[in-house]
Amino acid sequence: MPQMGNRARAAILGASGYTGAELIRLLARHPHIEIRTLTADRRAGEPFGRVFPHLAALSLPDLVRIEDVDFGAHDIVFCCLPHGTTQETVAALPEHLKVVDLSADFRLADIATYAEWYGHAHRAPELQKSAVYGLTEIKRGQVARARLVANPGCYPTSAQLPLVPLIEAGAVEVRNIIVDAKSGVTGAGRSLREDILFPEVQDGIHAYGIGRHRHAPEIEQGLGEAAGAPVTVSFTPHLAPMNRGILSTIYVELADGETADGLREKLRSRYADEPFVHVLPSGAPATRHVRGTNRCDIGVAADRAPGRAILVSAIDNLVKGASGQAVQNMNAMQGWEETTGLELEAMYP
Amino acid sequence: MPQMGNRARAAILGASGYTGAELIRLLARHPHIEIRTLTADRRAGEPFGRVFPHLAALSLPDLVRIEDVDFGAHDIVFCCLPHGTTQETVAALPEHLKVVDLSADFRLADIATYAEWYGHAHRAPELQKSAVYGLTEIKRGQVARARLVANPGCYPTSAQLPLVPLIEAGAVEVRNIIVDAKSGVTGAGRSLREDILFPEVQDGIHAYGIGRHRHAPEIEQGLGEAAGAPVTVSFTPHLAPMNRGILSTIYVELADGETADGLREKLRSRYADEPFVHVLPSGAPATRHVRGTNRCDIGVAADRAPGRAILVSAIDNLVKGASGQAVQNMNAMQGWEETTGLELEAMYP
Amino acid sequence: MPQMGNRARAAILGASGYTGAELIRLLARHPHIEIRTLTADRRAGEPFGRVFPHLAALSLPDLVRIEDVDFGAHDIVFCCLPHGTTQETVAALPEHLKVVDLSADFRLADIATYAEWYGHAHRAPELQKSAVYGLTEIKRGQVARARLVANPGCYPTSAQLPLVPLIEAGAVEVRNIIVDAKSGVTGAGRSLREDILFPEVQDGIHAYGIGRHRHAPEIEQGLGEAAGAPVTVSFTPHLAPMNRGILSTIYVELADGETADGLREKLRSRYADEPFVHVLPSGAPATRHVRGTNRCDIGVAADRAPGRAILVSAIDNLVKGASGQAVQNMNAMQGWEETTGLELEAMYP
Amino acid sequence: MPQMGNRARAAILGASGYTGAELIRLLARHPHIEIRTLTADRRAGEPFGRVFPHLAALSLPDLVRIEDVDFGAHDIVFCCLPHGTTQETVAALPEHLKVVDLSADFRLADIATYAEWYGHAHRAPELQKSAVYGLTEIKRGQVARARLVANPGCYPTSAQLPLVPLIEAGAVEVRNIIVDAKSGVTGAGRSLREDILFPEVQDGIHAYGIGRHRHAPEIEQGLGEAAGAPVTVSFTPHLAPMNRGILSTIYVELADGETADGLREKLRSRYADEPFVHVLPSGAPATRHVRGTNRCDIGVAADRAPGRAILVSAIDNLVKGASGQAVQNMNAMQGWEETTGLELEAMYP
Repeated sequence: MPQMGNRARAAILGASGYTGAELIRLLARHPHIEIRTLTADRRAGEPFGRVFPHLAALSLPDLVRIEDVDFGAHDIVFCCLPHGTTQETVAALPEHLKVVDLSADFRLADIATYAEWYGHAHRAPELQKSAVYGLTEIKRGQVARARLVANPGCYPTSAQLPLVPLIEAGAVEVRNIIVDAKSGVTGAGRSLREDILFPEVQDGIHAYGIGRHRHAPEIEQGLGEAAGAPVTVSFTPHLAPMNRGILSTIYVELADGETADGLREKLRSRYADEPFVHVLPSGAPATRHVRGTNRCDIGVAADRAPGRAILVSAIDNLVKGASGQAVQNMNAMQGWEETTGLELEAMYP
Repeated sequence: MPQMGNRARAAILGASGYTGAELIRLLARHPHIEIRTLTADRRAGEPFGRVFPHLAALSLPDLVRIEDVDFGAHDIVFCCLPHGTTQETVAALPEHLKVVDLSADFRLADIATYAEWYGHAHRAPELQKSAVYGLTEIKRGQVARARLVANPGCYPTSAQLPLVPLIEAGAVEVRNIIVDAKSGVTGAGRSLREDILFPEVQDGIHAYGIGRHRHAPEIEQGLGEAAGAPVTVSFTPHLAPMNRGILSTIYVELADGETADGLREKLRSRYADEPFVHVLPSGAPATRHVRGTNRCDIGVAADRAPGRAILVSAIDNLVKGASGQAVQNMNAMQGWEETTGLELEAMYP
Repeated sequence: MPQMGNRARAAILGASGYTGAELIRLLARHPHIEIRTLTADRRAGEPFGRVFPHLAALSLPDLVRIEDVDFGAHDIVFCCLPHGTTQETVAALPEHLKVVDLSADFRLADIATYAEWYGHAHRAPELQKSAVYGLTEIKRGQVARARLVANPGCYPTSAQLPLVPLIEAGAVEVRNIIVDAKSGVTGAGRSLREDILFPEVQDGIHAYGIGRHRHAPEIEQGLGEAAGAPVTVSFTPHLAPMNRGILSTIYVELADGETADGLREKLRSRYADEPFVHVLPSGAPATRHVRGTNRCDIGVAADRAPGRAILVSAIDNLVKGASGQAVQNMNAMQGWEETTGLELEAMYP
Repeated sequence: MPQMGNRARAAILGASGYTGAELIRLLARHPHIEIRTLTADRRAGEPFGRVFPHLAALSLPDLVRIEDVDFGAHDIVFCCLPHGTTQETVAALPEHLKVVDLSADFRLADIATYAEWYGHAHRAPELQKSAVYGLTEIKRGQVARARLVANPGCYPTSAQLPLVPLIEAGAVEVRNIIVDAKSGVTGAGRSLREDILFPEVQDGIHAYGIGRHRHAPEIEQGLGEAAGAPVTVSFTPHLAPMNRGILSTIYVELADGETADGLREKLRSRYADEPFVHVLPSGAPATRHVRGTNRCDIGVAADRAPGRAILVSAIDNLVKGASGQAVQNMNAMQGWEETTGLELEAMYP
């Protein structure tokens, strides 16, 4: 272990869930970070290695309760708390702290939309105004200046990365965009729900939340911003019997005169210098090829139906869809090389 | 075992693959069938239980080569041979035999379309004229009078059952129909291919054959017939890490004045007396709930985008998508109760 | 559906778990049974198809609470309640009812051993005296005369079927018997436990409860009875990432002059007329080949170490390891053909 | 990418299999290594990223044939070739090269034993004499001086690490040692075999090669060396439906006066300074907690049967069981810090 002298001191709130564990996996090797505090209210007092034995070999602090944290001795806070519980927690944090929030609590700029989809009034509306939506490749400049970054949802990351540049370029129509997404089970978190018990998921697939998943307005916010006008998307998530990964198959109408090859070139050009976005020269991506990495792989194909194209994106929902992008945002906020701590090769098979 | 006196004598050609095995699982308990012959050229001479130990307890004939079969002593032939090898085999069968072909060789009525998608001229064009496409619920009358039934593909079954009645009723537009389908790995058969080795499939998902899968023209044939005009569909298959099941998520534009509830009612009415098609009163189906059965479960949901709806169908690709529908077709051809031998409850978990 | 006139009327207590669902799958097709009542306290009032949609097509009664059941209108009761809650429930049932209890509550004849392993005094010690341990192949005669049958545990079934005849024959030593067992996740039931969430189980394996699993004394009871003296076994269960199946690999010391071939012959002879026990002529069994069936497949191999042999048994933990054996016991208790309702082919793949 | 100036130049022979890919994943980030050459005879001429798209983002040389390699321009060779093909290849390599062979070709010191188990005479008997068996923690000194290291098999690694120190200490008897091992499917390599197709493996488990697996003599060689006398072990491998991982459950008889706690203490003491071997203070390890790492986790438990104990070890078969240990051996051979390039946290879930 290197010495901790001039490292930024990080606290991770909600360290007993999957995004918390993944964040710790990444931050433990980050050269500029010292993990000083881990919280988990129900498991306070326990060593972290009892909650996640795969990281037992790391030297990590025991879990504590949030109210016992001395935030003055920290520089950065990552919030991995459940949706709906984070607004007040973040609002109460000292001003000097930079914050990356992995929940949905600050993702929707319009608090009325938030209230509509999350079922209660926003509890920190003033703070919302300063929150930056951290889809790093799209918002890098704002992220760099932000104090509070709302880390994007997993599905919205996989949908926006291929779509935003194409909408900005006017290369696809904004009507009738269809996002058919397939997710691994870790996307549901480490919560005691019957529907994610092993026997309920294994060897089968189903759609859920059709037409009413909370990531729909988040996707629409990003696409609407790119379009300069409101956008409605058709978004259908599916649960696949796998641990990690989101594959989004996206059906679009081409703008007049546009082609699938044209879309691919626009994406390749847009992402040419991005370390984490790979536009495939041909073929379609697979989630297993980005497993464990912060990468988003994108494929483009012509549809049989004239005037249409199909985009396919693959991410690891726990990395680029959550904790990896959180580290990427932190790097941008701190002025560090954006890939620091994220030089990960995919683990396959 | 009941006595064999007046049973129909069946031969299964290509019994060493997954559809062959599943057919035998079903026919072994069928009260009107005697399994007299099983062929598998490369494994001729072996007991069937060595090829599929899960059925070793059944009394079954050893595997033989096709050329060694005395077809005169049979009444019905099921062909589970690879695509492209079946046309000549079926053409050479004695006239008195009824035939259910599970390959793609006789599914496309237009032999030019066949040649385009399968890469060679049709080898039994005369026979093709008499072949009936065996989507039983839709073609029951023709199936009952057929000598040769082309058993539908797995994806086309899952796509046509929800769509055909709605297109016939003019309830959905025939343009911009999108079929996003997810299949288990048995759909690829028991073939030695690197891409279906366990480690290549486990814990990941990907799309394949985008815009060029051979089931697209088969789906279009069925939808076009329903529409009375050519139809182009967008069809994207995916490989999911599971053994069995196809889930098709289908995105449609509603006809003027139509609603998702209206679609559901039309489907419920159309399939009210069908033993194998269940239209859910609400929610979306899951492949694991039809595992091992001949059922097709269908759900209908309104889309967020106005004027659109989402249909989701779930089948077991080896049963309703292959061998179960083959038995159903045989039952119809023989004038037996259509559910005979198919009274199966789903095996879950 | 056949008419219900002279069928035995069955109640299933605890129908919302996996063994309950599997029992219903089997009983729904049983020609001599009418499923009259299903209970599930927390889900009382709900249609069964909402709890287990895979069986929604069956005509089944809604779930009710136990205290609302009119037991006078029943002939047979199956208890699928959690361990520790069944003794008092069964003790309170009317005398005319036959009972098959799938919990562990009546499996241990010695109530002191029960108290030691289950942590509380037995709550129906008188009733225990009349309970028959329902390992059907071994106890058929007693089962036929029993009012209350304690259905064996899944692990004990897989361990005793190969071992009991060999111990009875003096073919293996009773010292140093080692049972290394691997189970699918449904063995843990449909309970909200973090350790059986999909991501906690998928793509990994581990041992648990080493040296202190409650099935150890149950196995020892059966082996001790066969030996006519107390037996201590080494029993180590493992959790494998699969839905169904138990594979027990059993290491034994041969009696003087005995051989692995000799063991196999003794088992083949002992089980020659048993419909549900198959002793393989060579090779080792696989759980997937008995999936969904009431079968126990057994293989025997010589060990490298002289004087030792290895037995391997495979069952489906929900069928022969639970609900299938329960039906088999009921058949024996009622004097029906023991295979009635259990003529199941394995579902593979 | 750092500059390549003074790095050791490595060739990987047989780079199109899983151990090759895993080796490249590890070496690509190794600060002292330049991957100069990758061979794969059947895929020569192809870019590596086509064979393993998950590593497509790395800058790697195209695949070539072995006969086209200029070995003079290399320092280290890793052989990931099939068993039986490596002896002649290695014998033909220039003397200046250091070699880590991941096949079984040089693991057995006794060429008569090799011939017995591998079915042909050893093809490089002179070279065999200088080969060092690379179980690093046990053979570190010899490895450091070796030119040719035979990298251990996956099963033997998982069996020897817990057993060797205990046998050396006389803490367990060498008779009746039983190793019941469960492996993920990548252990079978990326070979076209029907028995490792996804549907053949998914959702089931089975034993194979009982009493005749080639890793048995390798385990016995290591244990015999520790005991100073020949040892016979009972070794039974199983195939579990998972990608990675070996769990070995090992049943031993305690030496007089020894206890399970005593075994644990001896192992903790023996491995106290080892970065890759973790002896758990209590409980049993799980393969998923070492996934992707070079770790071996070991648990010790008392058996119910007096005088016996149970050891459980968990490794990732592709890392500590193959490519990770190969890198560890290379580090030792080169005099580099042994953990270089192997600072990996487990990827879980």
